[in-house]
Amino acid sequence: MPDLLRGNAAIGQSGGPTAVINQSLVGVVEGLRSGLHASGHVERILGMRHGVKGLTKGDFADLTDTHQDRLDRIAATPSAALGSTRDKPDPAYCERVLGACKKHDIRYFFYIGGNDSSDTCRIIREMAVASGFDLRCFHVPKTVDNDLMENDHTPGFPSAARFVAMACMADFLDNISLPGIKINVVMGRHAGFLTAASALARRHDRDLNPVAPEESTDGPQLVYCPEVPFDLEQFLADVDAVYSKKGRCHVAVSEGIVDKMGMSIGAQLIKSGQTDAHGNVQLSGSGALGDALADFLKTKLTPAGGKPPRVRADTFGYVQRCWPDPSPTDQREARRCGQFAAQLAMAGHQDGSVAIVRQGSGSELWLGKDNGQPYLSTYRRVELREVAAKTRHMPASFLQGHNNVSRAFVEYCLPLVGGLPGFERL
Amino acid sequence: MPDLLRGNAAIGQSGGPTAVINQSLVGVVEGLRSGLHASGHVERILGMRHGVKGLTKGDFADLTDTHQDRLDRIAATPSAALGSTRDKPDPAYCERVLGACKKHDIRYFFYIGGNDSSDTCRIIREMAVASGFDLRCFHVPKTVDNDLMENDHTPGFPSAARFVAMACMADFLDNISLPGIKINVVMGRHAGFLTAASALARRHDRDLNPVAPEESTDGPQLVYCPEVPFDLEQFLADVDAVYSKKGRCHVAVSEGIVDKMGMSIGAQLIKSGQTDAHGNVQLSGSGALGDALADFLKTKLTPAGGKPPRVRADTFGYVQRCWPDPSPTDQREARRCGQFAAQLAMAGHQDGSVAIVRQGSGSELWLGKDNGQPYLSTYRRVELREVAAKTRHMPASFLQGHNNVSRAFVEYCLPLVGGLPGFERL
Repeated sequence: MPDLLRGNAAIGQSGGPTAVINQSLVGVVEGLRSGLHASGHVERILGMRHGVKGLTKGDFADLTDTHQDRLDRIAATPSAALGSTRDKPDPAYCERVLGACKKHDIRYFFYIGGNDSSDTCRIIREMAVASGFDLRCFHVPKTVDNDLMENDHTPGFPSAARFVAMACMADFLDNISLPGIKINVVMGRHAGFLTAASALARRHDRDLNPVAPEESTDGPQLVYCPEVPFDLEQFLADVDAVYSKKGRCHVAVSEGIVDKMGMSIGAQLIKSGQTDAHGNVQLSGSGALGDALADFLKTKLTPAGGKPPRVRADTFGYVQRCWPDPSPTDQREARRCGQFAAQLAMAGHQDGSVAIVRQGSGSELWLGKDNGQPYLSTYRRVELREVAAKTRHMPASFLQGHNNVSRAFVEYCLPLVGGLPGFERL
Repeated sequence: MPDLLRGNAAIGQSGGPTAVINQSLVGVVEGLRSGLHASGHVERILGMRHGVKGLTKGDFADLTDTHQDRLDRIAATPSAALGSTRDKPDPAYCERVLGACKKHDIRYFFYIGGNDSSDTCRIIREMAVASGFDLRCFHVPKTVDNDLMENDHTPGFPSAARFVAMACMADFLDNISLPGIKINVVMGRHAGFLTAASALARRHDRDLNPVAPEESTDGPQLVYCPEVPFDLEQFLADVDAVYSKKGRCHVAVSEGIVDKMGMSIGAQLIKSGQTDAHGNVQLSGSGALGDALADFLKTKLTPAGGKPPRVRADTFGYVQRCWPDPSPTDQREARRCGQFAAQLAMAGHQDGSVAIVRQGSGSELWLGKDNGQPYLSTYRRVELREVAAKTRHMPASFLQGHNNVSRAFVEYCLPLVGGLPGFERL
């Protein structure tokens, strides 16, 4: 019989919301109900309003007896139903969190979020241990950036990748229809996974080895991830090569692109940028990077005495992370991550994070591939310190040159996003 | 027996593409095949590449024998499969168009587009008549702006409205989750229909009389259409009222908002703006308007010595018009508009445009309404001059005060967009 505590459980959501973060919330509730609540160890299941901010104020939504039908509807609703927060607790804040846990007899703490949230879990757990208060802390992974260590991928990413792929598919057809240069700016502060997902918009070139951008019959032809230093002159040459050949060019750029000194191109261009509590410059919620890149191309590609080329930039913005047509795989996995975290608690673990492990490759989705295995995933416990405050980047094998992604990336990503609409060209 | 000509037919697509403009293309082809082609009057059905631009060059895609399965896939593909153009023919250009029609024995000219395209049809028809060449010219309506006269609504609008409603729904939940001020900039140069569709994102207040923005439990709380002069100080007061009460504020703004002198707010703020062949300043493909409004609010709402509020702006951009999840109603109606145009030709008409007429109100979709009729639409011929180069605006009955839309608008729009996802809040 595992070493189980009696007390209440608290669940919070933190950081940027996603289309499936409520699946994880409901997963934890379901896991607790069929485990610790059923066994009498957990009495109340408390949802923290706006994460640790609500916890310290005693602001809870009691989920102990919420009807399963309602839970199912909450799970299917995008964004964080409990409210989220970007508060990053310092030691004094963590003391207040710990005080609130003691006051409300909370013995199980679940936090759904990214690497900062995992770090919050780790710090609170360490402070609880140091003060002799047995508080079990579990992190449930969530981030559209897909940048958590130890995970094959992270809940929230597949649905955001689905949005990016569909948006790029539609916008590429728009770019063929009314030719010009089109830049789409994609979320992802440090990791390029979401920008790379733009390559799923391609149809004709997908099952070939990558072709030179100016030879591609597909789009986007150029993909810039933050893992490769971004050079404005090289960017100009890349766009010019495609535009000269085709009279149009379709580009996906990460909001997080950096120069060879590691300085953010966006932060340099966004004058009125705000910083959050983690010291990050605001990149989303502004069209400044895309507009600056478009202005640069207009200026440089205008022939002497001639008309500037038609250049447009869109910044996909917040709809990327909450678009209400999530990947079915993502919905299922996010739910199971929450359930698995509750099972870790039920098994007597003191703390931990959940990682998704891929078993089947999913490569049967590839046209003409006869050795594919069905896509399968499982879950395992990892130490909080292995995830906390660390950032995973695109591996070199997912990149192709300085302005493209590899077939390996497309093979990795395609099984995650769900069915994409077909299209036909004349 | 109607007066029918023998010759070829040409079909073109013009202006900004939509998610269903290919439905209309395929509708014309189907209508011709079952009519004029079947009767032997039309030999070849020629698709003009990039509208009149391709016609003058003799650049065609021959659609006479294209397999129906392929046509169905083209119909389901967003954006203009033939390619589009923003060329607005002047008299010399129209002479070249007419010359090309004579050269390729084109006797039936179909042009799918907005009010500029309708005007192109009208001019070409008049020049043909004047030169004694019998060329029958038909306009098929298309525009996400919904700004064509004589139409209850225009193919392309319902699908774009669906995107805007879903995006605002998801983004409103994001705004509740991580509170702040959020501005979403929506397409629509002169008419506010698409911006108004943001109100379909509301769920709780929908079946009530509109409540004051600061009392609303729903979002967006503030909606600014170009039909109402936009005043920056009033905007500030509106946002402040909601933000002071709720700690958050969700806003939809048309890219086409104008001040009381009729001057475009966007054009004043966008320094590097490009103009198209119609003399319109480029509003889409730039985040400048949203960023300028966000900067204005940040500056004005920062308390003395305090932190600025969290303000973000997204500009929905081109994905609004081509998102590959169109309204089923829109798909069906766009197809039928194309078929109806071919039927007009078959019936011996010399020219004309197609207008959608609403029969059933569709108000059965309203919760608690027991006198609703199922939504139904029919089609009728209207004179080209009634549509050409004219712009329809939101009627006063669709507006509520200076910053909201009425229940009448929501009743009008809701049956058009197809089923919207539900959501649940805690």
